Amino acid sequence: MIKVPRGTEDVLPEKVELWHHIENKLHEIAKTYNYKEIRTPIFERTELFQRGVGDTTDIVQKEMYTFEDRGGRSLTLRPEGTASVVRSYVEHKMHGFPNQPVKLYYMGPYFRYERPQKGRMRQFTQFGIEALGSADPAIDAEVIAFAMDCYRSLGLQSLRLVINSLGDLESRKNHRQALMDHFTPYKDELCGDCQLRLEQNPLRILDCKRDREHPSMKAAPSILDYLNEESQLYFEELRSYLEKMDIAYDIDPTMVRGLDYYHHTVFEIMSDAEGFGAITTLSGGGRYNGLVQELGGPETPGIGFAFSIERLIMALKAEGIDLPLEDELDCYVVSMGDEAKKEAARVVYDLRRAGIRADKDYMDKKMKGQFKAADRYKAKFVLVLGEDELNEGKITVKNMQTGEQKMHSLEKVVFYLKEIMQGGRQHG
Amino acid sequence: MIKVPRGTEDVLPEKVELWHHIENKLHEIAKTYNYKEIRTPIFERTELFQRGVGDTTDIVQKEMYTFEDRGGRSLTLRPEGTASVVRSYVEHKMHGFPNQPVKLYYMGPYFRYERPQKGRMRQFTQFGIEALGSADPAIDAEVIAFAMDCYRSLGLQSLRLVINSLGDLESRKNHRQALMDHFTPYKDELCGDCQLRLEQNPLRILDCKRDREHPSMKAAPSILDYLNEESQLYFEELRSYLEKMDIAYDIDPTMVRGLDYYHHTVFEIMSDAEGFGAITTLSGGGRYNGLVQELGGPETPGIGFAFSIERLIMALKAEGIDLPLEDELDCYVVSMGDEAKKEAARVVYDLRRAGIRADKDYMDKKMKGQFKAADRYKAKFVLVLGEDELNEGKITVKNMQTGEQKMHSLEKVVFYLKEIMQGGRQHG
Repeated sequence: MIKVPRGTEDVLPEKVELWHHIENKLHEIAKTYNYKEIRTPIFERTELFQRGVGDTTDIVQKEMYTFEDRGGRSLTLRPEGTASVVRSYVEHKMHGFPNQPVKLYYMGPYFRYERPQKGRMRQFTQFGIEALGSADPAIDAEVIAFAMDCYRSLGLQSLRLVINSLGDLESRKNHRQALMDHFTPYKDELCGDCQLRLEQNPLRILDCKRDREHPSMKAAPSILDYLNEESQLYFEELRSYLEKMDIAYDIDPTMVRGLDYYHHTVFEIMSDAEGFGAITTLSGGGRYNGLVQELGGPETPGIGFAFSIERLIMALKAEGIDLPLEDELDCYVVSMGDEAKKEAARVVYDLRRAGIRADKDYMDKKMKGQFKAADRYKAKFVLVLGEDELNEGKITVKNMQTGEQKMHSLEKVVFYLKEIMQGGRQHG
Repeated sequence: MIKVPRGTEDVLPEKVELWHHIENKLHEIAKTYNYKEIRTPIFERTELFQRGVGDTTDIVQKEMYTFEDRGGRSLTLRPEGTASVVRSYVEHKMHGFPNQPVKLYYMGPYFRYERPQKGRMRQFTQFGIEALGSADPAIDAEVIAFAMDCYRSLGLQSLRLVINSLGDLESRKNHRQALMDHFTPYKDELCGDCQLRLEQNPLRILDCKRDREHPSMKAAPSILDYLNEESQLYFEELRSYLEKMDIAYDIDPTMVRGLDYYHHTVFEIMSDAEGFGAITTLSGGGRYNGLVQELGGPETPGIGFAFSIERLIMALKAEGIDLPLEDELDCYVVSMGDEAKKEAARVVYDLRRAGIRADKDYMDKKMKGQFKAADRYKAKFVLVLGEDELNEGKITVKNMQTGEQKMHSLEKVVFYLKEIMQGGRQHG
């Protein structure tokens, strides 16, 4: 037997309704925020991620599915969304679009070769947004509000929003120097990776999982003390927008996010739900002001966030949230005899064309078995067609909620049921 | 500048609404037919397609994106949908599910390394269904009706349904012998591929593009003359179901479909629209009765179809069909002054949380520029917030359809607009 590849899984029919519900909600929220979906290919030229994510990152060094196509080009299954969106932004010259900022969202499969574990699969589903072209702190607030709404609109409550500022280039440079000065005396006590980071990118030391408990960490210089006036103002503006919108947040000056191109605003949303497990970050995002240029476009500010839908589903479970899922059938047509069986197929077909969810037996089941199937499908109505009914041009309609039973003419039964269904859907 | 990989393309925001419309319609139709979505991974073990699609097919020999992961396993980007669905059916023992037949659909990206041309991309989007577990001709009719409904429900009219029967094993064996007897005298005149096919699978000669015009083709023995009684009966039953449902069809005894595992029913839907171009087949499907067993499951009959959404969109264009797409904004909030700008962000946020599509300026535009943006977004209402209004706790709401203008209190404006919007959506 051939199995599903390691680190991937099938979404089976019994779970897919939950996915539909979540996806529909996310599309809806994007509409209210006036973001438009963009769809980029599943694979890109490898160079895109080397440049757009960064050659020195774990993603590029260890986690990409890279391969050559039959023409010898190096391709990579997309490991994250931002680089592809920015590639498309540059390629289609979106900086010249009349509507600015360009507000985009994406949703689909992404791929990282990691050790599979709960909440971390090799194929996962990411939802994310990018707002390109504005450096107004109001859009940073919009992006954060959008991220929070994704979770809150699904009923999640144990959420914690954490924000920080990484400042502009000047602020970062000063902070970087302070970090080097601070950590250099402890160099020999830090892990090998951090010893490298100390020279290449000391900010990442703050992110290190191995050195987390080292005493030097606590006293490390905070970026917030090194923000220049402009960066301070930017951060204050963002905060005042969040306060205006009544969105609660914590500030964590040690939160740095992994990627080099972040500037100013960075944020994460964590789950505080008990039983959510060790990985508490649901979503992360931030402002990047050099990426569009890096990928060949004009200097353009951008901000976005992304999250994995698999992890969102874990959070729903941890909070015990049952979303209202619709999976009942409207009508099941039971028939007896060869002629009635054919007529039943026609009735089912006409019901479907009228937008009614209908089904019948295809397993040569006896009446009793057909009624059982109708039960399993939770059919709201069972239509019964025997030889007698057929000869009279009639069909029996049984309302499974009330038990009420009525004969209808075969000609008008679809019309009758359509009226009931429409009424039910509108008022229900 | 890094470009999109050859043979792939971005779906840009201006086109994505059309995709949403089509996808929603397909999800809806699947519901009325009582099919449930299944999602399988983007890649599978290479062996799956070698066994499930067939080692001798063009797909497996020439067109697959195959690569090794970092653990040395051979993986392949899925080139078609059926093999993955059947793999999942076997892996999850769906033959034991209480509801039979198991009726599944899928929609998503698929990959074939072909020479890119109009309507044939290396990444394309396929929609397909599989009904597993029933050998009732009524389900063949259901599957064909489903396929036709996908096109008709989007307004397509220039459609031609072509059906054929390939019979059961015995019928195929007899037909195969007749084909060998018929083509052997012409062997030297046929192309190299067909000379091989003559020994391996003479049925495929009928599918050959190079030998299409060879005189021996016309007189080739028809499968329909070799159907045994059971196969004839099966085909007749299918036809009587289609007639009962009033679905018009042609029979083409030379239509064989590419894959070896087809039995009995095969069908294609063509576009007759002028200007559709050389490739007129929109959709194809058929019954396969050996595939589940080939992939390690119990003997199980199956039938399905698939089509490319890109090609469906081409057909919509060829028939000049404009689908009703919704892309307007409900409200655009125009503001003047620093305080009003912040308050505008809050109003926009509250509108969105009430389910209203709302936006504001993030480019520091003057009033005039903000009004222009509102126009471009086709906002139904423009809300104006200046210093005066702010001081009075009010906001002006302008209905862009009627030109009517009214002041509302800042506290109640969201409530007011929500009522109007809900009314409009329900009655519109």
